[in-house]
Amino acid sequence: MYTPAHFEETCPDKIAALIESAPLGCIVAQTEQGLIANHIPLFISRETTLIGHLALANDMHRLIDGGQEVLVIFKGEDAYVSPNFYPTKQENPRHAPTWNYQVVHVYGNITFQHTRRAKLAAVGLLTRKHERQLNGVNAWKMSDAPADYNDQMLARIVAFRIEISRVIAKSKLSQNREARDYVGVIDGLRANGQNAMADKMADYVS
Amino acid sequence: MYTPAHFEETCPDKIAALIESAPLGCIVAQTEQGLIANHIPLFISRETTLIGHLALANDMHRLIDGGQEVLVIFKGEDAYVSPNFYPTKQENPRHAPTWNYQVVHVYGNITFQHTRRAKLAAVGLLTRKHERQLNGVNAWKMSDAPADYNDQMLARIVAFRIEISRVIAKSKLSQNREARDYVGVIDGLRANGQNAMADKMADYVS
Repeated sequence: MYTPAHFEETCPDKIAALIESAPLGCIVAQTEQGLIANHIPLFISRETTLIGHLALANDMHRLIDGGQEVLVIFKGEDAYVSPNFYPTKQENPRHAPTWNYQVVHVYGNITFQHTRRAKLAAVGLLTRKHERQLNGVNAWKMSDAPADYNDQMLARIVAFRIEISRVIAKSKLSQNREARDYVGVIDGLRANGQNAMADKMADYVS
Repeated sequence: MYTPAHFEETCPDKIAALIESAPLGCIVAQTEQGLIANHIPLFISRETTLIGHLALANDMHRLIDGGQEVLVIFKGEDAYVSPNFYPTKQENPRHAPTWNYQVVHVYGNITFQHTRRAKLAAVGLLTRKHERQLNGVNAWKMSDAPADYNDQMLARIVAFRIEISRVIAKSKLSQNREARDYVGVIDGLRANGQNAMADKMADYVS
C-alpha cells in the first residue's frame, strides 16, 4: 500500500479502533486459481492473532495451503473531498480533489482448524463480542438454540487463525491540511450527509 | 469468493448500483513483493473498463506488470445480524448469528499510461462525475486551479485502465429468510442505528 509519511497510521490505538469499528475483514490470497478474496468477520486476539470461521463449502480453505501468507484488509469510512470544501480556496486556488479513507492491511500466515473445540472457540468469541455490543444483557447465546442445531451448524464450518506478521495502516483524513481547511472538509462532508466520515475526522484530531 | 446461489448477485443494475455507491475500489495484485492492495477511486466506462490514476510515487505501477490480472473489490455496507432480530425466533429457536454485506469482485488486466492525454482523461472523468454529484452547478473544475499547478499535479500521477474480464458479486442481505424475519432484520438494524444497511435491505426487495 502506498503510504506517504503524512498518511501512515502508526498509532496502535487508532489501528485497533479501526479494526474494532470495521471487523468484517477481506481475506485475500494468491491461489492456483488466481487471486481470491472473502469478507469474513474477524476477532483480534491479543494484537497477535485474527480468529474466524468460514463455511465448509467455501473453497478458500481448500485453495489456500496451511501456513500460507494472506492479506487481510479492514476498511473504514471513505468520502470524496471537493476542493470547494477548503476555505483557503478563496485566496489560494492551488487545490485538487481527493478521497479520504482509513484502511488497515494485516499480513499473516493462516491455518485452518477442523476440531470441534477450535470451531466452538471461534464462534463463541465472535458471538459473545457482537451480542454484548449489540444486545447487552439481552445478548443471544448459543444455548438459546437447540443442541442438535448447533451441532449441525458447527459441522458446516471450518475455524482458522491468522498469526499476524506485519501491519500497515493508512489514515488519509486531510490531516496534512491547515486547520481551516481540515474544519472545512468536516463541515463540507456534514453538509452533504457524510456524517460518518465527518465524525471520524473530528475524532481523529481531538 | 464463496457465493452460494441464494446470495450470488446476478442483476447487472444492482451490481452497477453497488459500484456507483462505493467507487473507492481496492486493487489487489500478486507481485514479487507478495500481495499488495491499494484503495483508489475508479470510474467505470461502458461496463467494460475501470479507469483511474495513482501517484507516481505509488510503487503499484512498478510492481505490477503491464497486462497483469488484478482483482478489484468494491464493498458496500455491512452489519452484524443478531438472531434476536428474527420474529420467528419465538416459535423456532433454530437460528444463528450472521453478517450481511454486499461486495463486487472485478477481475481484469491492468495497463498503465504515462501520456498527458490519458492522465487528463482519467482525472477529468473522475472529477466531473464526483463534482457534479456533490456540487451540481457549483462543481469545481480543473480550470479553477492555475495551469502550472495542474501541470505539476499531472506530472505526479500515472493513469491506468483495467479491461474487465470477469465479475462476481454477492448480496448477502437476509434475502434467503422468510418475509417476517427480513423485515425484522431491517427493524433491528434501524433500532441500533445501522440505517445505511437497513436502507439497502429495504431497497433491495422493493
